[in-house]
Amino acid sequence: MKPNLDRLATQGICGLIDPVAPGITPGSAPGHLALFGYDPLEFNIGRGVLEAVGVDFDLQPGDVATRGNFCTIDSSGLVTDRRAGRISTEKCTELCRLMDGMVIDGVKVFVRPVKEHRLIVVFRGDRLSSETGDTDPQQTGVPPKEVKALIPQAEYMAQIANEFLNRARGILSQHHPANMVLLRGFSQRPHWPAMPEVYKLKPAAIASYPMYRGLARLVGMDILTTGSSIDNEIATLVKNYRDYDFFFIHVKGADAAGEDGDYERKVKVIEEVDRALPALLNLKPEVIVVTGDHSTPATLKAHSWHPVPVLLYSKVCRSDKAMEFSESACLTGGLGHIPATALMPLAMANALKLTKYGA
Amino acid sequence: MKPNLDRLATQGICGLIDPVAPGITPGSAPGHLALFGYDPLEFNIGRGVLEAVGVDFDLQPGDVATRGNFCTIDSSGLVTDRRAGRISTEKCTELCRLMDGMVIDGVKVFVRPVKEHRLIVVFRGDRLSSETGDTDPQQTGVPPKEVKALIPQAEYMAQIANEFLNRARGILSQHHPANMVLLRGFSQRPHWPAMPEVYKLKPAAIASYPMYRGLARLVGMDILTTGSSIDNEIATLVKNYRDYDFFFIHVKGADAAGEDGDYERKVKVIEEVDRALPALLNLKPEVIVVTGDHSTPATLKAHSWHPVPVLLYSKVCRSDKAMEFSESACLTGGLGHIPATALMPLAMANALKLTKYGA
Repeated sequence: MKPNLDRLATQGICGLIDPVAPGITPGSAPGHLALFGYDPLEFNIGRGVLEAVGVDFDLQPGDVATRGNFCTIDSSGLVTDRRAGRISTEKCTELCRLMDGMVIDGVKVFVRPVKEHRLIVVFRGDRLSSETGDTDPQQTGVPPKEVKALIPQAEYMAQIANEFLNRARGILSQHHPANMVLLRGFSQRPHWPAMPEVYKLKPAAIASYPMYRGLARLVGMDILTTGSSIDNEIATLVKNYRDYDFFFIHVKGADAAGEDGDYERKVKVIEEVDRALPALLNLKPEVIVVTGDHSTPATLKAHSWHPVPVLLYSKVCRSDKAMEFSESACLTGGLGHIPATALMPLAMANALKLTKYGA
Repeated sequence: MKPNLDRLATQGICGLIDPVAPGITPGSAPGHLALFGYDPLEFNIGRGVLEAVGVDFDLQPGDVATRGNFCTIDSSGLVTDRRAGRISTEKCTELCRLMDGMVIDGVKVFVRPVKEHRLIVVFRGDRLSSETGDTDPQQTGVPPKEVKALIPQAEYMAQIANEFLNRARGILSQHHPANMVLLRGFSQRPHWPAMPEVYKLKPAAIASYPMYRGLARLVGMDILTTGSSIDNEIATLVKNYRDYDFFFIHVKGADAAGEDGDYERKVKVIEEVDRALPALLNLKPEVIVVTGDHSTPATLKAHSWHPVPVLLYSKVCRSDKAMEFSESACLTGGLGHIPATALMPLAMANALKLTKYGA
């Protein structure tokens, strides 16, 4: 039962969105970028940056972020396990601390745990470049690769990264099976047009999972501190409502339940959102959009390519016949079946914030 | 009555496709290319190549194919009839044989009949180019044009083609009204990404009409020998089912009936497909797509721009409310109204053959 969402669907206009393209299953990053109006085929995020924002690391312009793996090397320096036996997150955290804070020729190196054998290494300094190759050989029985510059201007970055890896090898030598680090996905924070600039909005993100906060930060949103429940998130919205004119509120539970194949729990999360909705409606926002960054059918236990239901409400939305918020009602909704990148222009139009194109 | 198709529509997901774009009536070549995932506005086939593959001519890389017309010229060499009085296909075949097999400076010339006054001329040799003009003046009372090179590298091709035309004039001089040949649409087999490469599939085509076999060959399908009835085609499918993982089965009859304005016969062809369907379903394919390359309404007796019904079945297709396979049921189907080029990605997704885009 989701009476509030269904009432909003009745008053609003519904439809289906394709986050990337028909048949294409999106990761969460492209899925969200599309919702914010950034074509995910054009706006790519490097792996290092994605992992860094995913642990709430505050990337600065010029920083070079990499995704790391703890790995095992033998006495001849050959990789025997690319994941160091999947050490615990605790162990990972402890080992990262040993390497964190190094300074190499003035370049500061941040080493932070992600999960199990996964970590990030971020280089901060002048003259850095992300145009370097990986060190992960993607197979065992061979040594880690050296960091190689892909363009002449990246020679310095390669030197710094190789020196970091030399020192890391020394620091980790007594910590078998996690006695070495592999790096890949050297990347820098992208220089994208930010939402405040593109839409002339002051946007804020309310998300309890770090990756979504990180994505929001990349497109120029302020990040609000919030608790993890839906009620916490709505309370954060209420508290900050007067200070912003755009809010991105992220609910993780429905996707997580889908990934677990737990249909019942997914229903419960949606019902929880429904119960929290009146507190949001009380704020009388001009435009409300309810949707997802991708489908996660419980039957597939994974993200999928299926189009995503969307509901848009405003006083000028031109309501359709959809009487509930569901895949089947959205299928014949007034928004039709559209690319997800069309949502922001539609939301802006419904807020009467766009002017006429042409005379 | 088409109970099997309707049952499949009930279990599957329906929609409408635009082969090229709204309002655009596709030829069979662009219509099919779109179904195979090739944007027909980007992937063009030269007229000569299309005619050559249309008569099952096995074009090799480097071959230059042209579309020819037998025509009539008077004693001063002026064209009096661009179609030589539409001679019979028999006569055309006989005259082509007289010219077929010429060798000019090592370039082999194939001359093959198409239908009535239409023929193809294919040049096979080194250093050939398709960057030449036509000889068809597109009007009477003037002589045929010389073949002219459009770029310097095509001079040799122009020489060879002009020598062929000189010899043809001699050979045909006693065969009024078909006493000369006009050539147009010099073209080479396109270098397109092939389906096995793009989709990692092993595809096969089952089609009784040569043009569809030719198109399938151009996109990298194996061509299976088959009889011409729908039952023959399904038998070919059953026989070869274990050797391929993608089949294109072409049914010509519904289009032909539409072209003839014969609504009743069109219904009968669809009913024939319906009766043959269980033998296909018995193979338990993971994904089934039923659609057409364009509409051919009997009322128009021609191809048309109307969107084409499509039905996709898989275990993970997210079934909609469509209970029959028809234009009206497809209109509100779950696939929506999409470009035909979206079908292959959707089919691949439903076969669970695509990985996630982005993390």
